[in-house]
Amino acid sequence: MNIIRHDMGPRFSEMVTVDLGAARLLYLSGQVAENSSLDITGQTREILHHIDRLLATQGATKQDLVSVTIYLRTVGDYAAMNSVWDEWVPAGHTPARATVGAKLIDSEYRVEIQATAAIAATGPVP
Amino acid sequence: MNIIRHDMGPRFSEMVTVDLGAARLLYLSGQVAENSSLDITGQTREILHHIDRLLATQGATKQDLVSVTIYLRTVGDYAAMNSVWDEWVPAGHTPARATVGAKLIDSEYRVEIQATAAIAATGPVP
Amino acid sequence: MNIIRHDMGPRFSEMVTVDLGAARLLYLSGQVAENSSLDITGQTREILHHIDRLLATQGATKQDLVSVTIYLRTVGDYAAMNSVWDEWVPAGHTPARATVGAKLIDSEYRVEIQATAAIAATGPVP
Repeated sequence: MNIIRHDMGPRFSEMVTVDLGAARLLYLSGQVAENSSLDITGQTREILHHIDRLLATQGATKQDLVSVTIYLRTVGDYAAMNSVWDEWVPAGHTPARATVGAKLIDSEYRVEIQATAAIAATGPVP
Repeated sequence: MNIIRHDMGPRFSEMVTVDLGAARLLYLSGQVAENSSLDITGQTREILHHIDRLLATQGATKQDLVSVTIYLRTVGDYAAMNSVWDEWVPAGHTPARATVGAKLIDSEYRVEIQATAAIAATGPVP
Repeated sequence: MNIIRHDMGPRFSEMVTVDLGAARLLYLSGQVAENSSLDITGQTREILHHIDRLLATQGATKQDLVSVTIYLRTVGDYAAMNSVWDEWVPAGHTPARATVGAKLIDSEYRVEIQATAAIAATGPVP
């Protein structure tokens, strides 16, 4: 069993991967926009790009997502967030998902996305 | 490693199962009541019925739940939600659980439940 | 595949462990302070102590945490919660993390922490 921490900071790691024999689970930290002045579509786009980038470091893609939790500052942003999500999420590979309203740490954040993915653990661990 | 998506929609799948060698993890989407005009006990009952139904498609039952997150629109509904939960949850097989207050996507939703289960992966994948 | 429930109550278990062949996943319930009259630093300290204690029953430690979700009643408590977290979290082993604001079940609760850990499943199950 092997735990690897990616983009590791002193407080948390952006992604933690766990080898479970045949498979590897990838736990991502809650992603927020770096440019928090963007509107909901801009922030969602930035976050989904962060997720693509983190997954890619392990040879994974958005097709490997198994479960996603989306926190919205304002539930009224649901449709606008989904307009970006729906273009991004791969047909035939949609994850389980829950979306709820929550206060976010920075008052400018409009959305935060927490994701888990799973890939085959056939190769050596990078 | 095998990921299977159940009740798959273009936006999300109601359940995603991941084979991890000896075991299979089942990630369920946040479940809400279809009849959102029901009160908290009625909505909780409907949601737990959805969970039973989703698990059953994989030969799993509520005894296989390992972790559950419950989002309540009003934390004052905690006791009423629990009255339904307590009758439903199987003695000797209670999952880990967290319950928090959150705004839900539809203002009529009073509760949303997100669940993870685990079963043996001994047979062929349906 | 083996599911074991620890500190099991009729409503939920404080921790559920799942054997997945090479590894064991540990799902913890949302932890809150027993002494809810404590301030944010006191409640965070108590919760992290609960987590240490639950993990220890399986021979695990905070170094084995892979993913943590922190719910704050008041996002303004973020810095004070982190001051306790930063002293506690082990350098070189920080988990993935998400922190959001949420109403908590008891109005005195200021923080609730939900955690998942992973350990090697090499020995017999206690």
